[in-house]
Amino acid sequence: MGDHGRCDCGDAEAIRGLLSDYGRLLDQRDYGAWAALFAPEGEWVGGEAYGTIAGREELAGFAIREFMATPPCVHMLGNMKIAVEGEQADAWSRWMLVEQGDRALRVALAGHYSDRLVKLEGGWRFLRREVTLDLPAAR
Amino acid sequence: MGDHGRCDCGDAEAIRGLLSDYGRLLDQRDYGAWAALFAPEGEWVGGEAYGTIAGREELAGFAIREFMATPPCVHMLGNMKIAVEGEQADAWSRWMLVEQGDRALRVALAGHYSDRLVKLEGGWRFLRREVTLDLPAAR
Amino acid sequence: MGDHGRCDCGDAEAIRGLLSDYGRLLDQRDYGAWAALFAPEGEWVGGEAYGTIAGREELAGFAIREFMATPPCVHMLGNMKIAVEGEQADAWSRWMLVEQGDRALRVALAGHYSDRLVKLEGGWRFLRREVTLDLPAAR
Repeated sequence: MGDHGRCDCGDAEAIRGLLSDYGRLLDQRDYGAWAALFAPEGEWVGGEAYGTIAGREELAGFAIREFMATPPCVHMLGNMKIAVEGEQADAWSRWMLVEQGDRALRVALAGHYSDRLVKLEGGWRFLRREVTLDLPAAR
Repeated sequence: MGDHGRCDCGDAEAIRGLLSDYGRLLDQRDYGAWAALFAPEGEWVGGEAYGTIAGREELAGFAIREFMATPPCVHMLGNMKIAVEGEQADAWSRWMLVEQGDRALRVALAGHYSDRLVKLEGGWRFLRREVTLDLPAAR
Repeated sequence: MGDHGRCDCGDAEAIRGLLSDYGRLLDQRDYGAWAALFAPEGEWVGGEAYGTIAGREELAGFAIREFMATPPCVHMLGNMKIAVEGEQADAWSRWMLVEQGDRALRVALAGHYSDRLVKLEGGWRFLRREVTLDLPAAR
């Protein structure tokens, strides 16, 4: 993901839109639309805690189970770094999960995404999204 | 707001600057400059709680009243999705309001913006900014 | 930092990557790589509390001392406004420091960066980063 001078801005804009949609659709609990942000064979990789979820149907089912019993939340996304190479791209970004507690909002978790993206006929999709939890850190 | 391959990056950069200025000027409590980020006939749409505020003078007065008695705060902005179509554009983005409490900082509110933007002679401006509160959610 | 219509998107993308790396490398406590994000004569300007730190070796030493005794943290970055003018650029952005407390995550501090950037042979670097603390505010 080095610096690059080529003018791939339409692609980078579309990828930023994809990264934004990921959070928006999870927060709206629209799991079918969320799963469609992945390539048909796309993977969500959650490390030892979650393993790898692959394919849109599996992804939608996974998200439904994970968020079923959770309070209203907002994914705050930032620090986006995007490097486009033709029809593929890499991205790194930060996420922070803000949850509604009984008496106040709270920052429940924070971490980062490492993405491999692919440009399909319908637009950019996640080929592989690796999700890492940074806070709370294992101590 | 579909994917788009056109190279409208100078416009998208300028719009990101506008979205950033919105938060910066509110946090600096520079309400006149903040209101000038809107088109002369621009609207701030706050739903049932706030209704629609239109025009720069009305906007500045509204912001003064709203923030008069509030503690120092920071608007944290992210998840920006921008789609430019010629001299107009749509955007979606997230906001989080961090406030200074008596003993600590706290995430007071979080939500999202849906924007209709217009390119005027002086640059991009808000034609209509719809502000939605997501957290705390109505339960 | 006015609006600009030129297509300097490859540069703006690279600068966004640099701003993202700044947070990522601090949070990973990779201080040598973090210091290398600055130009050889680059400055970190922290106002009355910190003064000016200049040069990569001094910068790395400073970061080591500052973060040595601090809990795991995440720099959440957003509100990025970037204006490129040839081989130099200006940027304004927000930062929020989320720290791991004993029982929960907490927003410890929030502020903003004002940057002067330069394009060197190896890519964009910080010539001068001015760091301002906005919250907690002096009252």
